[in-house]
Amino acid sequence: MDKSYLINCDMGESFGNYQIGNDDLLMPYINAANIACGMHAGDPLQIEKTIDLALKNQVTIGAHPGYPDLQGFGRRIIPMSSDELSASIRYQVAALIGMTRAKGGKVDYVKPHGALYNLIAKDADIAQTVISAIKDIDPSLKVMGLAGSHVRQLAEKNKMIFIAEAFADRAYEENGQLRSRKLEGAVLSDAEASLNQVLSIMTRGQLKTYQGNTIPLKAESFCVHGDNPAALSIAKKLNKKLL
Amino acid sequence: MDKSYLINCDMGESFGNYQIGNDDLLMPYINAANIACGMHAGDPLQIEKTIDLALKNQVTIGAHPGYPDLQGFGRRIIPMSSDELSASIRYQVAALIGMTRAKGGKVDYVKPHGALYNLIAKDADIAQTVISAIKDIDPSLKVMGLAGSHVRQLAEKNKMIFIAEAFADRAYEENGQLRSRKLEGAVLSDAEASLNQVLSIMTRGQLKTYQGNTIPLKAESFCVHGDNPAALSIAKKLNKKLL
Amino acid sequence: MDKSYLINCDMGESFGNYQIGNDDLLMPYINAANIACGMHAGDPLQIEKTIDLALKNQVTIGAHPGYPDLQGFGRRIIPMSSDELSASIRYQVAALIGMTRAKGGKVDYVKPHGALYNLIAKDADIAQTVISAIKDIDPSLKVMGLAGSHVRQLAEKNKMIFIAEAFADRAYEENGQLRSRKLEGAVLSDAEASLNQVLSIMTRGQLKTYQGNTIPLKAESFCVHGDNPAALSIAKKLNKKLL
Amino acid sequence: MDKSYLINCDMGESFGNYQIGNDDLLMPYINAANIACGMHAGDPLQIEKTIDLALKNQVTIGAHPGYPDLQGFGRRIIPMSSDELSASIRYQVAALIGMTRAKGGKVDYVKPHGALYNLIAKDADIAQTVISAIKDIDPSLKVMGLAGSHVRQLAEKNKMIFIAEAFADRAYEENGQLRSRKLEGAVLSDAEASLNQVLSIMTRGQLKTYQGNTIPLKAESFCVHGDNPAALSIAKKLNKKLL
Repeated sequence: MDKSYLINCDMGESFGNYQIGNDDLLMPYINAANIACGMHAGDPLQIEKTIDLALKNQVTIGAHPGYPDLQGFGRRIIPMSSDELSASIRYQVAALIGMTRAKGGKVDYVKPHGALYNLIAKDADIAQTVISAIKDIDPSLKVMGLAGSHVRQLAEKNKMIFIAEAFADRAYEENGQLRSRKLEGAVLSDAEASLNQVLSIMTRGQLKTYQGNTIPLKAESFCVHGDNPAALSIAKKLNKKLL
Repeated sequence: MDKSYLINCDMGESFGNYQIGNDDLLMPYINAANIACGMHAGDPLQIEKTIDLALKNQVTIGAHPGYPDLQGFGRRIIPMSSDELSASIRYQVAALIGMTRAKGGKVDYVKPHGALYNLIAKDADIAQTVISAIKDIDPSLKVMGLAGSHVRQLAEKNKMIFIAEAFADRAYEENGQLRSRKLEGAVLSDAEASLNQVLSIMTRGQLKTYQGNTIPLKAESFCVHGDNPAALSIAKKLNKKLL
Repeated sequence: MDKSYLINCDMGESFGNYQIGNDDLLMPYINAANIACGMHAGDPLQIEKTIDLALKNQVTIGAHPGYPDLQGFGRRIIPMSSDELSASIRYQVAALIGMTRAKGGKVDYVKPHGALYNLIAKDADIAQTVISAIKDIDPSLKVMGLAGSHVRQLAEKNKMIFIAEAFADRAYEENGQLRSRKLEGAVLSDAEASLNQVLSIMTRGQLKTYQGNTIPLKAESFCVHGDNPAALSIAKKLNKKLL
Repeated sequence: MDKSYLINCDMGESFGNYQIGNDDLLMPYINAANIACGMHAGDPLQIEKTIDLALKNQVTIGAHPGYPDLQGFGRRIIPMSSDELSASIRYQVAALIGMTRAKGGKVDYVKPHGALYNLIAKDADIAQTVISAIKDIDPSLKVMGLAGSHVRQLAEKNKMIFIAEAFADRAYEENGQLRSRKLEGAVLSDAEASLNQVLSIMTRGQLKTYQGNTIPLKAESFCVHGDNPAALSIAKKLNKKLL
C-alpha cells in the first residue's frame, strides 16, 4: 500500500498573532500536510514556515484552499459565482505552488477545505468548477476528497487522480457524510477510537456510523484535525500502529 | 529601442464592487500592465480579467505586489519583518505567475507598488529583501523600479535585469524622487505636459523638476496611473506619438 | 405628509482609496441618508465625513448595517448564527450612533443593507433577530424596510416604528420583491421612469411591475442608489417635483 | 486605596475560530477588563461574550481600541492621518459603549492598545489626537495609560481623569518604557516576580528595571497580559495578596 498520504493533517492555519494547531509537534507523525493558502486561514509567513517544516520531515505537501473568509475559518458557504470561485482556487493553489517550489519542494495534491470540501461532495457543478480550476493550474495535481463521494468520479472524468480521504477523528452519519460540527459527538477525542475507525476502514473497508450501523468505506488517506486537542495522541498512535 | 515596456500602467486594482481605473479603455494604448496581486488591491477574479485583457491586447504582464493593506491601498508603510515581507512578495508573485500561466501567458517582470516602491528606492536592505524574494520565485523575472535609484545596482548585483521606470504623470523633486501625493502638483493631469516630460527623458535623458530645474534621468518605461482622471488622454497621446 | 424620509439614499460606502457614489453631489437633494457602518462598506473616516455632510444639509441620519463582507459589498448572505448576526448589528449601529452624537447629531432609524435587507423581508426569524438587536441598542430607533413586506408587522409587534420603503430606481417583480441585480432591467436609469414609479406609489398606492402588471404598494420613503450612474438626475428630478 | 482598576487585563481578543487568552478563567481574579473593539482583535460576538463575563464578575469595563490591523494584532504602527486615527478611535469606543449599554453595563475608561499605547507615551501630538477622540465620545471616560509618561498631563489638560498603569508581567527599561517584545526578557513569566514588581510600585513607588536599577514609578492599575501563559497564576497570586 502507498503510504504517501496515509495520515494527513490540516496545517499552517495560524494567522499573525493567532496560533492554531500544533504543527511543530504533529508534523513528525504524519505523511501529508494540507497547507492553508491564506484565504480562510494562514498568512504568507505561516505558509512558508509550514512548507519548511513539511520538507524537513519529508511530508507530502498538499494545497488546502478554502472560501475567502477568515472570520468563518472557511467553515461557512460564501456565495460566489463560478468565475469567482475558480479564480479564488487558482489564486490560492498557484501561490502555494510557487512558494513551495522556491523552497525546493513540490505540491502534490489539492484538498479543498471546510465548507467547500463538504459542498463539492454534494454538488456536482461546484465540484466540477473546483476540479477544473485545479486542473488549470496543473493537470498533474491530485485531488483529495471525501471517500465514497462523487468527487472520485468527477476527478477521474477530468483525468485527474483522486485520493479518497476518511476522517480519523470525526464521526460519520448513516449517509457517509461527516457529522456536522454543530452536533454533539462530531469530533472523536479518543486515540483508541480513532485507531479502530482507521483500522476498520483500512482492513475491512467499512466503518461504524455515529448511529452505530456499519457502512462500507474505502480510503487511502486519514485526516487528523490539528485543532482537535487530541490530535497529537491520535497521530502518534496511528503512526506507531500503521507506519 | 525595445518598446516592450514603453508605456506601463498599474492595472487590476478594483476590488469586489469597488471599481478603480479604466482598464478596458487603457489597455489598448499601453505596452506593459502592472497587475495588482490581491494584497493592497485587486481580487482573484479581477486579476484574471486583467490577465485576459492584457493577453488579448498583447501587453507585457508584470506582477505588482504591495503591502498587505487594502484600506491604505499599499500607499503606507506597514512595518514587517524581513521574513514577513519576503514571504508576502513570494506569495503575491507566485499567485500571479500561476494564474497567468493557466491562461497561457507569462509574467515578465515585477514592479513593487506604492509605499514599497518608494521605500526600496531609499532603503538598500529592504530593496535586497524584495529583490531576493522575487529571485526566489524565478530568477528570470525582471525588476522594474525607479529610474536613477540604487535599485538598478542592487538588481544587477543579484544578476537580475532592471527596467528603469519614469513617470509620465507625476512631478519630480530636485532629488529625483517622486513628489509626494500629499503635496500639491504631485500628479500631472495634462496630456501635453506628460508627453513633453516623456520626450525629454527619452531623447535628452533629462527632465524638469517641480521646482523648474533640469536633472538627468534615463528610463525605459513610462508609467501612466490608471486612477489619474487624465490617464486615457495621456496614454492615447503617448501611444500616438511614441509607438 | 411627513417628508423626513421621502427620498433616501445609501451613503458613505467608500472605503480607503476606493470611492463609490457621489455623496457630495447627492446629499443636497435627499431627505434621509442611510450611512454604511464599516462592515460591508465604509470606514470610520468615511462615516464621519458622511455624518458631517448629512448634518450640514439637514438630512435625517439612518444607520445602514450589513453583513460583514467587504468583498461582497453586503450583497450575499453570509451564514451567521443568530448570536453572531445580532452582535454584528448592535456593533454597527452602536458605532454609528456614538460617532453621530459626537458630531451633535442623532441617528433616527436603521435600514439593513443588501442581502440582509432582502432576507428579513422573507425570513421572519432573521427579521426578529435584527429587529431585536436594533431595539437592544435604542428602542426609539425606527426600522426602515421593504414596503409591503412582513417587516412592518414584526417591527410593530416589537413596538418599533416602521418606515415603508419603495425603490425609485429598481424594478419590481410580480410578488412585490425587488428584481435581482443579476437580471436584466433590475436598475432604472431613466429619471422620468423613476419619477413616475414614485408618483404612482405616492398618489395611487400602486406600481407597475417589471412584467407590466399593476400591484398595490404603499411607501413613505423612496430609495435612490448612489452607485446608479443616473442617481443624481433622478434625485434632482424627485427633489424638484416632490419637495 | 481605590481598587476599581487594581488588576487589569486585555480581554476579548479572540477572533472567529481563533482563540487567544483565557478570559473565562482570568475574569474572576481581575478588577478591570480592557475589551478589544474589533479592529486589531476581537469580533462583535466575542466582544459581547466578554462584556457578559465582565458584568457577571462585577469587573470594571474599559474600551481597548487599537490600530485597524488584525494581522499585526495592533502591535505595529499603521501610518494614519490625524483625522483617520481619531475617527477610528471614536468608531471603536462608540461601538463598545453601545454594546455594553445594551447589556445594562457601562464603559468606565479607555486604554489604547499595543503600538498606539506605546506611541502616545512618546508623541504628544498623537496623544492629544487620541485623548480628544475619546473626549468627543464621552468626556466622563477616564484614560488609562503608561504610568510616568506625559499622558497624565495631557489627559488632565483635557479635563479627563487619568489612570496610571504599570505592568505586572512586563520588564521595564531604564527610561521607564516597556522593554520591547522583540527583545529577550520582555515578558515576566514568574508569578512571584510579578507580585514583587507590583508590591514595589504600590508600597514604595519604585521598580527594578531590566538592567537592575531602581527607578521611581507610581501606578493605580497593574496589567496582566492574557496571552502570557503565566497570566492565570500571576492574576491569582496578585488577587490573593492584594485584594
